[in-house]
Amino acid sequence: MPGMALVDRALLGPGPSNPYPEATAALAAPLLGHLDPEFLRVLDETCARLRRVWGTENARTLPLSGTGSIGMEAAFANFARPGDVVVVGVNGLFGERMVDVAGRYGADVVRVDHDWGQPVDVRRVLDAHPEPSMVAAVHAETSTGVRSDIKALAHAVHARDQRALVLADCVTSLAGIEVDIDAWGVDVAYSGTQKCLGVAPGLAPFTVSDRAWDRRVQRPPTWYLDLNLIGAYVDGSSGGRTYHHTAPVAMIASLHAALGRVLEEGLEAVHERHRAAGQRLHEGLGELGLELFAAEGHRLPELTTVRVPDGVDSAKVRQVLLTEYGIEIGAGVGAFASSVWRIGLMGHNARPERVELVLGALRRVLGA
Amino acid sequence: MPGMALVDRALLGPGPSNPYPEATAALAAPLLGHLDPEFLRVLDETCARLRRVWGTENARTLPLSGTGSIGMEAAFANFARPGDVVVVGVNGLFGERMVDVAGRYGADVVRVDHDWGQPVDVRRVLDAHPEPSMVAAVHAETSTGVRSDIKALAHAVHARDQRALVLADCVTSLAGIEVDIDAWGVDVAYSGTQKCLGVAPGLAPFTVSDRAWDRRVQRPPTWYLDLNLIGAYVDGSSGGRTYHHTAPVAMIASLHAALGRVLEEGLEAVHERHRAAGQRLHEGLGELGLELFAAEGHRLPELTTVRVPDGVDSAKVRQVLLTEYGIEIGAGVGAFASSVWRIGLMGHNARPERVELVLGALRRVLGA
Repeated sequence: MPGMALVDRALLGPGPSNPYPEATAALAAPLLGHLDPEFLRVLDETCARLRRVWGTENARTLPLSGTGSIGMEAAFANFARPGDVVVVGVNGLFGERMVDVAGRYGADVVRVDHDWGQPVDVRRVLDAHPEPSMVAAVHAETSTGVRSDIKALAHAVHARDQRALVLADCVTSLAGIEVDIDAWGVDVAYSGTQKCLGVAPGLAPFTVSDRAWDRRVQRPPTWYLDLNLIGAYVDGSSGGRTYHHTAPVAMIASLHAALGRVLEEGLEAVHERHRAAGQRLHEGLGELGLELFAAEGHRLPELTTVRVPDGVDSAKVRQVLLTEYGIEIGAGVGAFASSVWRIGLMGHNARPERVELVLGALRRVLGA
Repeated sequence: MPGMALVDRALLGPGPSNPYPEATAALAAPLLGHLDPEFLRVLDETCARLRRVWGTENARTLPLSGTGSIGMEAAFANFARPGDVVVVGVNGLFGERMVDVAGRYGADVVRVDHDWGQPVDVRRVLDAHPEPSMVAAVHAETSTGVRSDIKALAHAVHARDQRALVLADCVTSLAGIEVDIDAWGVDVAYSGTQKCLGVAPGLAPFTVSDRAWDRRVQRPPTWYLDLNLIGAYVDGSSGGRTYHHTAPVAMIASLHAALGRVLEEGLEAVHERHRAAGQRLHEGLGELGLELFAAEGHRLPELTTVRVPDGVDSAKVRQVLLTEYGIEIGAGVGAFASSVWRIGLMGHNARPERVELVLGALRRVLGA
């Protein structure tokens, strides 16, 4: 029974990224039961650390037991009712997905389309409906490498309408660029562990404001993602915990360790490390004669999209990078599948040596 | 930033169990991307190995990205429509849960209640409705330690009615006792990795017969568990794969390794190892003067329920076992929370030394 090949990949695509060493070590630590007092301490501490990284005091801040997309599902399942008007700013694949998921839960979805590569336009989203129940957008579009201004969006929504909830997809932003849930006024947000948090895929950090919590669906169609039930296990503040599903203990221990690493380095320092790595990559790609895809001024440092030069076989280059250099970069998405590459510098990969590695290999492969 | 304590627990409760060493090693192996050719090979091989363990040739056999309960959710979300009559044999917590989950997806649930500790009665389940869309039961009730005869149930259902689908919860049975999906005629089944499969919690192995697949819900309310979408990523047989969500690569590598270990030992040998360990435990508990809870003739070897002797503080004993001996056993569930203990010998724990460990410690603690 052959095992998986033990190959060292530099995971410089749109995720997963290479985990922080602390996260890998914790994955293989002796397993604890999901009701073990020591594990419950680690779980509480993980939620507390997540609050710091999210910039929130939300009591309901926890890791959901699934990969990042399960956060999106939980958001709509618990906070959108059939017939609710949900305005979605769509500027890439994950905005598209929001439309799909919200629709499945019966929401009356108003989509506001943007060109891919552009950020969400606050004015257009605001004008799309006078009284939505929810306004949703992606902070860092993984499909295009674009940052949208969630702070401006949330402030504008709340300034006009005290009722609308603001939902932000922070899968590729959390622990990479600034996210400040409470100060921005975001009501519901989710992320994934396999991007800037520097953990293997398998958990979706999630946070809910009190005002959103008061308006939650009391019995959502999904049992597994019913936050009422999950909260009864995760929240030990009242002294009692009710078993829901068996928590993915190894993954949570790994997230706990990675969050410890991030907070020890300091959130600002982590953001600066991502900013510096991204800037260096953007400059280096320019020096290779390559053109960036995302709109200037809205480019993510942690995920860079770059146009494939005319006449270059996009898939071939990725294959050579993988097989000859052990570097994974991503293809584009949708209409840009073969005309764009996506290069990630997330979490533990946001370091100068990773930038030089991918630039050097690209220079060789492209003969630039 | 303190880490999790590195303590060696003997996880002899209802799960998680201590993983096979191969599973732990694979968790910490260098991470691969979810589209890496080597990872896709491992994923295909994982599905092939799962088919052997399930005893099925079902093309749709795959690990779902969540803990065991997500398998239950996926089963009802993809195969029960609003108004469908679903008969559920309820003889413990997980049968209760099926009633809850099926109801959320709009099924017309007919529950057939049994005393906890008893197996599901095939005749009563059959008589509950003349033409159900689905008949569901738990193979190994984790709450009571009881095995129900899924083979007899499935044969009886199909003998009467070609239309009804048979759904079996195999969370605590797969890779511990015989499970034979195709020979039994089970249409939909799910399991969890943290029991007899000997992997950390985080994945739900799932299998679907062709006849069930033909009757699947085309657009279930859940996006994350829409098997149409997941299948497009997992099934590489047509040469193409469509990204759905980022697969939990480390967990899948770990499952792959544990399945390799199980199949190398041989499924029959693994079952025999569980049987022998369970028998030894049952006998030893009797020698300690303790009374087993589950009905005789229907006791699981991998999960034993035992009555707490009169005058003994159930929680205190569990605490002493944990703090002084590093042994985790489980409390009872529901009405039996403080009157029953649950002792698991699952996967890597189904060994003589684990039996002696828990018997010896119990003898000391109870002064028996």
